[in-house]
Amino acid sequence: MSVLSHYKGLSKLMEERGLDCVVILGEANLAYLTGYRGPGALLISKNGVKKLLVPLLEAYRAEELVKDVEILPYVSYSVQHCIYDNVLYKRLKEAIVHILKGIGARKVGVDISEGDYDVIVYVKEKLKHMVDISDKLKEMRSIKDPKEIEVITHAIRIAECGLEKSLDLIRDGMSEIEVAGIVEFGMRKAGANGYAFPTIVASGSNAAYPHAVPSNKPIGRHEPIVIDLGALYNNYCSDLTRTLFIGGADPEIKRALEAVIEAQEEAIDIIEPGIKACEVDMKAREVLAKYDLDKYFIHSLGHGIGIEVHEAPTLNSNSDTELKSGMVITIEPGIYIKGKYGIRIEDDVLVTKSGRTILSSMNKLIEL
Amino acid sequence: MSVLSHYKGLSKLMEERGLDCVVILGEANLAYLTGYRGPGALLISKNGVKKLLVPLLEAYRAEELVKDVEILPYVSYSVQHCIYDNVLYKRLKEAIVHILKGIGARKVGVDISEGDYDVIVYVKEKLKHMVDISDKLKEMRSIKDPKEIEVITHAIRIAECGLEKSLDLIRDGMSEIEVAGIVEFGMRKAGANGYAFPTIVASGSNAAYPHAVPSNKPIGRHEPIVIDLGALYNNYCSDLTRTLFIGGADPEIKRALEAVIEAQEEAIDIIEPGIKACEVDMKAREVLAKYDLDKYFIHSLGHGIGIEVHEAPTLNSNSDTELKSGMVITIEPGIYIKGKYGIRIEDDVLVTKSGRTILSSMNKLIEL
Repeated sequence: MSVLSHYKGLSKLMEERGLDCVVILGEANLAYLTGYRGPGALLISKNGVKKLLVPLLEAYRAEELVKDVEILPYVSYSVQHCIYDNVLYKRLKEAIVHILKGIGARKVGVDISEGDYDVIVYVKEKLKHMVDISDKLKEMRSIKDPKEIEVITHAIRIAECGLEKSLDLIRDGMSEIEVAGIVEFGMRKAGANGYAFPTIVASGSNAAYPHAVPSNKPIGRHEPIVIDLGALYNNYCSDLTRTLFIGGADPEIKRALEAVIEAQEEAIDIIEPGIKACEVDMKAREVLAKYDLDKYFIHSLGHGIGIEVHEAPTLNSNSDTELKSGMVITIEPGIYIKGKYGIRIEDDVLVTKSGRTILSSMNKLIEL
Repeated sequence: MSVLSHYKGLSKLMEERGLDCVVILGEANLAYLTGYRGPGALLISKNGVKKLLVPLLEAYRAEELVKDVEILPYVSYSVQHCIYDNVLYKRLKEAIVHILKGIGARKVGVDISEGDYDVIVYVKEKLKHMVDISDKLKEMRSIKDPKEIEVITHAIRIAECGLEKSLDLIRDGMSEIEVAGIVEFGMRKAGANGYAFPTIVASGSNAAYPHAVPSNKPIGRHEPIVIDLGALYNNYCSDLTRTLFIGGADPEIKRALEAVIEAQEEAIDIIEPGIKACEVDMKAREVLAKYDLDKYFIHSLGHGIGIEVHEAPTLNSNSDTELKSGMVITIEPGIYIKGKYGIRIEDDVLVTKSGRTILSSMNKLIEL
């Protein structure tokens, strides 16, 4: 990842806000700025001090991943013999304050909303002036650079490849859990370092739960099978949903799915820099309203993807964020009717200078 | 899950601390008390009011899972048409305060350390008296009832079955990622609803990272392959590690593994109610010290497992928690030598009235 350019954004922020130092606590923010994803804290001062506090057990890995930053292992208990001689025998919050005092930092930016309550309260108490930089980091992370777009595109390819290769193997009578295993194995075969989120395979009335957990329910013929999957690749996430049918779709549900696809396509068509996120959300709802289905669309239209599977911007009816070139967002309308069925279609879209590019490319109507 | 008995513990706590109401925010605590795992908040008053706030998109699922509790959907943006007519168009923190005011709660217990900083600060500001009940909930959850032990034992069986069935399929030259896919597929076949944590498959020098992420590195003959896997079953976790070798183990590493196994077995042997967690941790370190390997054991000996894969008690050199009958803990010594290799063996142990029962049963020295 082009971690160096991300540092530059942070330096600019420190200058603008007159910060002596920043403390980064969120695991995704740490990954964004260093490549290391895990617990800990990154401390950067305007004088060029760069220290990464990591739990002792993560020290080797952090040293391998992060260069030009001093790695400081910490551990909350004492270890009689240890391969490291520079271990801080402190809890994270104490280690942070210890270093901030050494630097003599007065005005410190912290990604407050990513930290544990206990850590924030402790550090805040010891500092003269703490500034919340969470939103600024969210905004920075929402605009992807070319290298990030390449990695996300690859993560999307892994998810698509995993699902496509699974289509020949899925049979009615298999459980949702088994189908989840098949598509995950497909993603691993395609090179996934892990999963962006717990895979959803939900069939029939279970599909009415947008965040269903795969169960032992056998999947039946003609009923919708919602598969929502995402790969983790090189720290970045993809997020893709398809609704499949075995033996052809139930006609009523197929009509609803066609409405969802129409809503998705019309929403995608208006994406361009400068449009507000809420306008895109409303467009999808307008299309669904034509079919009297909008009342069953019980979540927001989409969200940014990147190091986290849910990040800025959010696309709902209240979000007045203007879309910008470099954002990568999901567009995922769905219909959920309790006790009956659920359906969803989700693609990943890059906002470009001239409009948009759809990064995922799989068929939307899949009848096995 | 025997959610009812968990409620009783909470009622007792409310009485002891003189609380009018409790607000539960942590997803694992919600699962413990309701069976619903997801974002939201549970509000219980001493007068018998029980309300579960869930994001609108989780409302159907919560209604299905949770009985005898009023489900209140909330959403932070307005939805023109919605299938629900009782939606609170508020953010979670506002919805909580709205309900607390309705109840007239004055002294409220909250699992503060599980909540978002922003939510806790907001709710705290609006309340007369907030009491942190995080530790009490951790303590309650650390003692498992028979039904929980049954479910955890099944989750362990799924992990063991997944790994055992994979042994015939693992070959040198496969990537760590591919092997991760194989063992995960094995767990799905055995009925895993999901994974307790991201599966670790780390070979050779990568195994020196206790929390390695599976990579494209091909696994070689004679080098250690650390596989750390866990199933999620019915909301509960298992956690198991084995170190395998293809074509027999390198002799030096095999000797180290034998030391690790000896350390683990001696530590397990002293587990009984009343012993302090730190004594068990120190026993393992003492054994490793005989072989001059203790300095490479860079993490704690173990932790409780349950709804979360890491929960109370912690077993490290500082933890003076006394083990109690009903606790389920991991015992997982390891050796990590940077640039060379890593090894770990992990089993799950139930503390019983008379001592201990090892819930996992797989061979510890596996040479393929």
